[in-house]
Amino acid sequence: MSKWVYTFGDGKAEGSAAMRDLLGGKGANLAEMSTIGVPVPPGFTISTEVCTYYYTHGNAYPAGLDAAVAAAVKGIEAVIGAGFGNAENPLLVSVRSGSRASMPGMMDTVLNLGLNDRTVIGLANRSADERFAYDSYRRFIQMYSDVVLGVEHHLFEDALDDVKRDAGVTQDTELSAADLRALVDAYKKIVAEELGKPFPQSVADQLWGAIGAVFGSWMNQRAITYRRLHNIPESWGTAVTVQSMVFGNMGADCATGVAFTRDPSTGENSFYGEYLVNAQGEDVVAGIRTPQHLTVKGKTKHGSTLPAMEEVMPTLFEDLGKIRTILEAHYKDMQDMEFTIQQGKLWMLQTRNGKRTVRAAVKIAVDMVNEGVLTKEEAVLRVEPQALDQLLHPTLDPKAPRKILAKGLPASPGAASGKVVFTAEDAEAWVKDKGEKVILARAETSPEDIGGMHVAEGVLTTRGGMTSHAAVVARGMGTPCVAGAGEIRIDAKARTMRVRDVVVNEGDVVTLDGSTGEVILGEVPTIQPEMTGDFATLMGWVDEIRTLKVRTNAETPLDAETARKFGAEGIGLCRTEHMFFDPKRIVAMREMILARNEAGRRAALAKLLPFQRQDFVDLFTIMKGLPVTVRLLDPPLHEFLPNTEAEQEEVAKASGVDAATVRAVVLQLHESNPMLGHRGCRLGVTYPEIYEMQARAILEAAVQVSKATGTSVVPEIMIPLVMDKAELDMMKAVVDAVAKEVFAAAGVTLDYTVGTMIELPRAALRAGKIAESAAFFSFGTNDLTQTTLGMSRDDAGSFLEIYRRKGVVEADPFATLDQEGVGELIRIAAERGRATRPGIKLGICGEHGGDPASVAFCQSVGLDYVSCSPYRVPIARLAAAQAAVRQKQG
Amino acid sequence: MSKWVYTFGDGKAEGSAAMRDLLGGKGANLAEMSTIGVPVPPGFTISTEVCTYYYTHGNAYPAGLDAAVAAAVKGIEAVIGAGFGNAENPLLVSVRSGSRASMPGMMDTVLNLGLNDRTVIGLANRSADERFAYDSYRRFIQMYSDVVLGVEHHLFEDALDDVKRDAGVTQDTELSAADLRALVDAYKKIVAEELGKPFPQSVADQLWGAIGAVFGSWMNQRAITYRRLHNIPESWGTAVTVQSMVFGNMGADCATGVAFTRDPSTGENSFYGEYLVNAQGEDVVAGIRTPQHLTVKGKTKHGSTLPAMEEVMPTLFEDLGKIRTILEAHYKDMQDMEFTIQQGKLWMLQTRNGKRTVRAAVKIAVDMVNEGVLTKEEAVLRVEPQALDQLLHPTLDPKAPRKILAKGLPASPGAASGKVVFTAEDAEAWVKDKGEKVILARAETSPEDIGGMHVAEGVLTTRGGMTSHAAVVARGMGTPCVAGAGEIRIDAKARTMRVRDVVVNEGDVVTLDGSTGEVILGEVPTIQPEMTGDFATLMGWVDEIRTLKVRTNAETPLDAETARKFGAEGIGLCRTEHMFFDPKRIVAMREMILARNEAGRRAALAKLLPFQRQDFVDLFTIMKGLPVTVRLLDPPLHEFLPNTEAEQEEVAKASGVDAATVRAVVLQLHESNPMLGHRGCRLGVTYPEIYEMQARAILEAAVQVSKATGTSVVPEIMIPLVMDKAELDMMKAVVDAVAKEVFAAAGVTLDYTVGTMIELPRAALRAGKIAESAAFFSFGTNDLTQTTLGMSRDDAGSFLEIYRRKGVVEADPFATLDQEGVGELIRIAAERGRATRPGIKLGICGEHGGDPASVAFCQSVGLDYVSCSPYRVPIARLAAAQAAVRQKQG
Repeated sequence: MSKWVYTFGDGKAEGSAAMRDLLGGKGANLAEMSTIGVPVPPGFTISTEVCTYYYTHGNAYPAGLDAAVAAAVKGIEAVIGAGFGNAENPLLVSVRSGSRASMPGMMDTVLNLGLNDRTVIGLANRSADERFAYDSYRRFIQMYSDVVLGVEHHLFEDALDDVKRDAGVTQDTELSAADLRALVDAYKKIVAEELGKPFPQSVADQLWGAIGAVFGSWMNQRAITYRRLHNIPESWGTAVTVQSMVFGNMGADCATGVAFTRDPSTGENSFYGEYLVNAQGEDVVAGIRTPQHLTVKGKTKHGSTLPAMEEVMPTLFEDLGKIRTILEAHYKDMQDMEFTIQQGKLWMLQTRNGKRTVRAAVKIAVDMVNEGVLTKEEAVLRVEPQALDQLLHPTLDPKAPRKILAKGLPASPGAASGKVVFTAEDAEAWVKDKGEKVILARAETSPEDIGGMHVAEGVLTTRGGMTSHAAVVARGMGTPCVAGAGEIRIDAKARTMRVRDVVVNEGDVVTLDGSTGEVILGEVPTIQPEMTGDFATLMGWVDEIRTLKVRTNAETPLDAETARKFGAEGIGLCRTEHMFFDPKRIVAMREMILARNEAGRRAALAKLLPFQRQDFVDLFTIMKGLPVTVRLLDPPLHEFLPNTEAEQEEVAKASGVDAATVRAVVLQLHESNPMLGHRGCRLGVTYPEIYEMQARAILEAAVQVSKATGTSVVPEIMIPLVMDKAELDMMKAVVDAVAKEVFAAAGVTLDYTVGTMIELPRAALRAGKIAESAAFFSFGTNDLTQTTLGMSRDDAGSFLEIYRRKGVVEADPFATLDQEGVGELIRIAAERGRATRPGIKLGICGEHGGDPASVAFCQSVGLDYVSCSPYRVPIARLAAAQAAVRQKQG
Repeated sequence: MSKWVYTFGDGKAEGSAAMRDLLGGKGANLAEMSTIGVPVPPGFTISTEVCTYYYTHGNAYPAGLDAAVAAAVKGIEAVIGAGFGNAENPLLVSVRSGSRASMPGMMDTVLNLGLNDRTVIGLANRSADERFAYDSYRRFIQMYSDVVLGVEHHLFEDALDDVKRDAGVTQDTELSAADLRALVDAYKKIVAEELGKPFPQSVADQLWGAIGAVFGSWMNQRAITYRRLHNIPESWGTAVTVQSMVFGNMGADCATGVAFTRDPSTGENSFYGEYLVNAQGEDVVAGIRTPQHLTVKGKTKHGSTLPAMEEVMPTLFEDLGKIRTILEAHYKDMQDMEFTIQQGKLWMLQTRNGKRTVRAAVKIAVDMVNEGVLTKEEAVLRVEPQALDQLLHPTLDPKAPRKILAKGLPASPGAASGKVVFTAEDAEAWVKDKGEKVILARAETSPEDIGGMHVAEGVLTTRGGMTSHAAVVARGMGTPCVAGAGEIRIDAKARTMRVRDVVVNEGDVVTLDGSTGEVILGEVPTIQPEMTGDFATLMGWVDEIRTLKVRTNAETPLDAETARKFGAEGIGLCRTEHMFFDPKRIVAMREMILARNEAGRRAALAKLLPFQRQDFVDLFTIMKGLPVTVRLLDPPLHEFLPNTEAEQEEVAKASGVDAATVRAVVLQLHESNPMLGHRGCRLGVTYPEIYEMQARAILEAAVQVSKATGTSVVPEIMIPLVMDKAELDMMKAVVDAVAKEVFAAAGVTLDYTVGTMIELPRAALRAGKIAESAAFFSFGTNDLTQTTLGMSRDDAGSFLEIYRRKGVVEADPFATLDQEGVGELIRIAAERGRATRPGIKLGICGEHGGDPASVAFCQSVGLDYVSCSPYRVPIARLAAAQAAVRQKQG
């Protein structure tokens, strides 16, 4: 005969963690805990095979199940010392579903089963709490009637409201035992009226009703939908776990509490937790009574006068300490445990990996390696990469009150306070002339705002997404930024901003939390980051383990130095255009754009050359021979020209042409969709002299630094927005010709490579051909996401939030790589590129390079490196190590 | 011993057309012609195997080649009756390359070989034209020295300039025989000085030098590059063909001429051509002497007084007539032949398929089927689909003079003249109030210009490409349009336009040729189209043969009716947004956009519903049960709001809100890249009530027309810009819910389908998943091209022309589908879609649906239909038939 029922409890179990398919996650876990000596309330699990049988046999149970369940109930009674349906000492049980895969909240649960008009009295007597007993009973009737009997929920709500009104109270908790008794009567009447028969008083009937309901809930609409969305086969079925309820409120020998095996705030290896004598679990968290500390140490540390469990129940405390050791050894992680002591007997209700601060996470991971519990590989999996941010940036003091004005996107982490200003010029003036700390608030930023962004403590925008100009630049600078705070209306002319009726004037202090997106009125104290020894130790292991290199996106010496400090192994993306916005250079840049012919452009470019060369001298010197990938000019030229008439007149004056000419050029360069316009290598094909100058600046700088330092610089020159091999060939020819000249003039020859961004779907598809000429591919996933999804990152704010809310997308595709769409193109390009050129160097330089999920994807595709903004380098390093470990684990 | 040399001439040949690999295209063709009885000047071909031998044996020839060539030269001498190197009656030959694949102009050719200081005198005597003989000699020296001896070309040019200066003339033709004799001496001196040895006088040395040069040219840089670009293997090698030169200028028994087997202008089956007695080939085309007609009929028809060949050389004319018959029977096509009569003997120098007008092409194809020469399948291949345009639109009288002002893109075919106006309002006013014919000239058009475009004879824009708004709308209307004429500067305020110093004022007459892109000053007479019986016959065969259905893109009754007249089999794309620009409707549309909440939007939509329903009633009625695919609202909402402050104030007044509100909404809806913004189904997801109204209008109209006509209407409702199945599911649910309501109210149920555009790379990649919910895919190749290439069609004008000039792209990817990039995505989507839903209906509705090359691609991918603008329907039908025939042929 088949075995349908698996018991657990009393230090043994018929199942184990390995039997997840048969017992469901919950049943298998309870069996495992029982086996390793954790005192879980006894119970049994009806296997998923019964579910399968049930659905293939017209909702009938297999022969013998009845007897097996009865026997298992007897087993529970024996362990717990109570009787199922026994009026004096009633055993109450919970009945829960449990599938192989977690389906949280999708199926049904019944608690407190075993209560009836007789046993409720027994429960009242044993707990000496009549109110508790009747409250449990009325909750049981309501839950059971809803889940098992199909009585509409609202009928009970109405009855509850009636009783409250009659009692003249508003809160459920204000009802007396007598009120609740009356409510039980009302509930039973509802059931009898609705069903034409009374609420079941037989506890066996109750149990079978609940078992049937749980099996039935496998096929409810919610569960079916959930399975479809998560690709869970219907054939798996659910198990049913029946477990004894235990109570911590049956006298002074009862208690309930929560405990952490280590301090979740600091990570210190000391037992930490709180408990209450003669209380229910809710009481600890509800704040009605003040919880007491588990340990004397904890009591002392927190200045509590209430006795610790260590003092009050020393033996049980010792038991709990042993379980602490067992569970940590078993789960190899800090545990967050719930326990109940019922009449002098300790029961563990739940254990799970405990939430902790990132500082604690790092310390626990490092300690556990030192304790021999974890390997280094396991340890690096224990810290959430994203959370490292908190260790790299100032954070708001969590205890300080905050008056939240609005919420935007957490666009660049860190927290900062300052006086709000509304133009980049004001920001510079206030900082330089008045020595103020400022927050720059703009509808959106443009490259002309760079100066103001540099001096600001934080940047706030009301438009744009996670990869808007403001967000990208701020992250690169390590400046906190809240982007796309759409509730805020900025009136830059009036120098105010408002959210509904709150008006913030220029000079008012605001605080930004770039890690949460909060915009806060007034100043909030911040906590400065410190990189502890444990952090350094962990990151050392991270670097041993990972196989993906981590580079940075940087174009200024400050960025490059910051990134080196954070462990960057080169520059993956140096955007040369950012170098042209400096006031000294923009004049020459505009002269180039306004030139009527090639000779005019060349004259202007000649003025830019020394600046650009010095940029690269600085970067190459800082990067000390590490690879530097330089992207040639990418944005459309109109980005370098101003939009307002006043500014255009200034430019005209500075460039020695008339204002009409400037206006005409601005008009001529105007584009409907600049993102898809005359940019990237399209500029290089049109005006090869621009790329020629840039190639010359790069190669002359490489020669100069190589000679000066004796370290060979190997520049990687990257051609952007390529869609076809022909473009790359044409631009490579320009670079190669310049290289020949530069090397001839210098009398030395350096290695350099020419490669391309893969940032258009066509480039990904044609990668096999393009790889014939490209020494490397760098996936520009920002633009590749924009084109693959047909979604402008600057405009997506208006609907992406709705998409997320309606479940069309799970994550912002500009923050986390869309693996199904963009990811497939990356896979295709990597495969085709390697087929043509087996050793082709592959990297990613979009914003996704710093996103852990995206880094894992890069590992799976076998890229050589990821590149991200300086402050995300440690995150990417950790994510890469985790990806390497997980890949090894399969 | 291997056979290295293959002779031809005198009605026989050792080779044939089948031996293309061995003899090259030219050699094989000459052999074939010789075999079928066409008197080609005799010669021989040295096979490609010799080339292979040459390159694998250190540029040495195989044993026996020498003797074989000598024997073959003897053979030529015998046929032609002249001697190679014979001073009295010299045989001259040409030496040419010939590869298996055509490589025009890539390799070397030598003409007039066999001339030396002695034979030149013989040639002078026999032609009685000393000037001709020495001109031939000096040309030979120059060509031979350049190609074979490697003497720099410019040295000869300098010497020629010297002689002309000495003679006091400016044209080569003005030089006398004595001048040319002196030039020959000068050339020989140059050669002797450059090479240190005299120009070869031995004709055998000349011949072997030329043969070596031709083989050598297989590996010149041009040829190598050409092969790389066209994937021609180096191993194929080239053949060398040596052929007798013949001369039509050796006396009154000599002549030269060109002949067409049928009239290339009308297609009439009558012999047509011109000739000159005692003349060289150049003389016929150079216009120095007036050519005479071949036939008396031709002479009479063209009112010539000069005798026809039929009269002057009746026997030779009869010979030529026989060859006419032979060649047409052999090539099964109208031939364009060149012939020379040397001393009473007729030689055919060349024959090729003759160029013809499209009217002639249609007539010839139909006639040849009726004559039993061609099958219907062959006949449909004989007409260039694109050329059909000329039969559908008025064309400019080719004889009328034209004063071209500027050239833009041929954006919508046809020709029209009218008075130029610069605003849509003026266009409407001038036409309606004054009864004028107008040409609307704009920098670019927007949907608000529709009214003016409708009444204009033609549309001219200075910006935008082949798929700009102006181009697309004009093609749909069948209105001639020249787009992107960038040389023209329009000053709409001043009501003028100018090209450099030419100013055109409002009211001046201009003519547009939308088939060539010409903008012409003044009026040019036009020729009206007529669809002849032959046209109808051919199109009947086209419809029998093709397997691809052809639908139209149409949203107005006029478009739909035009398309039906042209044979459209349904509507593949009905763009509903075009329906909202009507002045009566735009008010409600704007009210909807300005509404503050869903209730406000619903109120405005309720006003639009009756209009929209009537649109579909009209279309369904016209289409009589043929399928109609309706795309729900696609463009971003800001397209419906005006940009100027004045217009915004008007809208505010009309909508009953204040101007500040309108401005705020315009600002809020502004997008950086509207193409990638809040549009398509993103609108539907955000405001489901919009799609709900549209679905209701479609389905209520379908019910109404089905009831009224008794013909079942099966609407195909298309959701645009889908990137994920979730979006489609959400919108399909909206449609299905409306359908349920509409059918319940009407008491009938109709079939309808819901499908999607595939216009984003992600949609193509996720097609397998999307097909779970989509009944059909329609490839929106305009947008798919924009996203795959990252290229805005509105902005591409600024660099696409440069790309074309520099050879980066071959064709405008918005006119002809980019098969390597966009095409691969279509293939992927079709495969994945069919894998999920084998019967899924697949079509294309971008502008490419009317492009023959793209139609062929659609056939190869196995789409069900293409859809294009009404005037392109016949083109697409013919292209589809051709694609079907070619696919069958493999």
